[in-house]
Amino acid sequence: RCHQRSVAMLDIPFPPFCAFLGSLGLLCVALVGVWCQHWRGGFSLDGGSRTFNWHPVLMVTGLVVLYGAAALVYRVPNTWSGPKLPWKVLHGGLALGAFVLTVLGLAAVFRFHNSNGTPNMYSLHSWMGLGTVLLFSCQWAAGFGAFLLPWAPAWLRQLYKPIHVFFGSTILMLSVASCVSGINEKLFFSLKNGTTQYKLLPAEAVFANTLGILILLFGVLVVAALARPSWKRPDSDSPDSRQ
Amino acid sequence: RCHQRSVAMLDIPFPPFCAFLGSLGLLCVALVGVWCQHWRGGFSLDGGSRTFNWHPVLMVTGLVVLYGAAALVYRVPNTWSGPKLPWKVLHGGLALGAFVLTVLGLAAVFRFHNSNGTPNMYSLHSWMGLGTVLLFSCQWAAGFGAFLLPWAPAWLRQLYKPIHVFFGSTILMLSVASCVSGINEKLFFSLKNGTTQYKLLPAEAVFANTLGILILLFGVLVVAALARPSWKRPDSDSPDSRQ
Repeated sequence: RCHQRSVAMLDIPFPPFCAFLGSLGLLCVALVGVWCQHWRGGFSLDGGSRTFNWHPVLMVTGLVVLYGAAALVYRVPNTWSGPKLPWKVLHGGLALGAFVLTVLGLAAVFRFHNSNGTPNMYSLHSWMGLGTVLLFSCQWAAGFGAFLLPWAPAWLRQLYKPIHVFFGSTILMLSVASCVSGINEKLFFSLKNGTTQYKLLPAEAVFANTLGILILLFGVLVVAALARPSWKRPDSDSPDSRQ
Repeated sequence: RCHQRSVAMLDIPFPPFCAFLGSLGLLCVALVGVWCQHWRGGFSLDGGSRTFNWHPVLMVTGLVVLYGAAALVYRVPNTWSGPKLPWKVLHGGLALGAFVLTVLGLAAVFRFHNSNGTPNMYSLHSWMGLGTVLLFSCQWAAGFGAFLLPWAPAWLRQLYKPIHVFFGSTILMLSVASCVSGINEKLFFSLKNGTTQYKLLPAEAVFANTLGILILLFGVLVVAALARPSWKRPDSDSPDSRQ
């Protein structure tokens, strides 16, 4: 009985977990916005540091939170019956939205660097981040070609599906790792004078470190939700699944 | 036929993949050693920056490479037959070795900070890194209590096993993310004068960025190997698996 109670305790249904994840994702977006608005001077398009501020906001919103939402579409039990095509379009559409925000986020940092004569693509953060975005673009294009276009043969879909699923989680982990290294780097850049030095842990540092930890938590929980066998869409061989 | 050929192509057996992973892990250890020896002045125990240099070497060796080796023990087909206990001891022993190196790696950076009057635990890298080590210590203790001590009931083992497996991959991803943010941070600290500025991408920066990408690749490949269904140890209910 003790066993059964413990198992039952761990057997959370997906919807409340998903609501918690959604709140955590929105919290991350809100916190990165507050960080840039309150401590980093807000937003603009003039090429200065306020243009840079779009970079963290768009990356966290696109490549982490919206990406996570796209990844979780097939875990919603409502998607398991009826035609699959609308859910595929939703999955691909959310991922496309995430990709658009990501590209805008890259444009913000390139514009900031170019306006200030700073070289692009020198830090490990930038190498990892751009690699993640390139993987994401391949993942989107291959997913579109294999699962949304009607002419991919069934055996190719079957072959590619576990690869697509694996890279789905991997790209999220890489983008979370990119965010964390980026926040760390930005704090070393920004907090270096007098009493606001990073190493003295001023309020901004505590705030942005906490943001980084929450982003990590969001990423880990999305990957956990994706991996949980009982939350996976039962495989169906209905003709519709090949549309 | 095209289908079968493609599936067969993806159906790599574990041993050659493991040999490749082992080489990649040793390459990471060698490169982090070369970085610290050739560009960062080598190693000592005097509390200066050459004491710090033990930190990256011990973390990459312990919390990434040796940890990865420990995680993969049950993927070696030889471990699937015969008594399980020796393999459990090997798994736990390798993880304990990884943990010891990790603690020494933390001691190196704390000693360096304390000798130089630098505060500890202020950066996001340090928060994430210490969190990862704390999770690893819980994982090791819980694994030891549940799987190596003889008195844990079978239902508890059954309940805890998927949690242990999930955290096994998660902690590796967190430790890889910690390494990457640490390398990024160290390069910003070290490369700031004249022609060796990080943003001018001197040879050391290319070298250490490449190291960071190889560490990421190692982590992703270990997690992929762990997740691959056909490489998992078939579950057996032999009495020995409860020892």
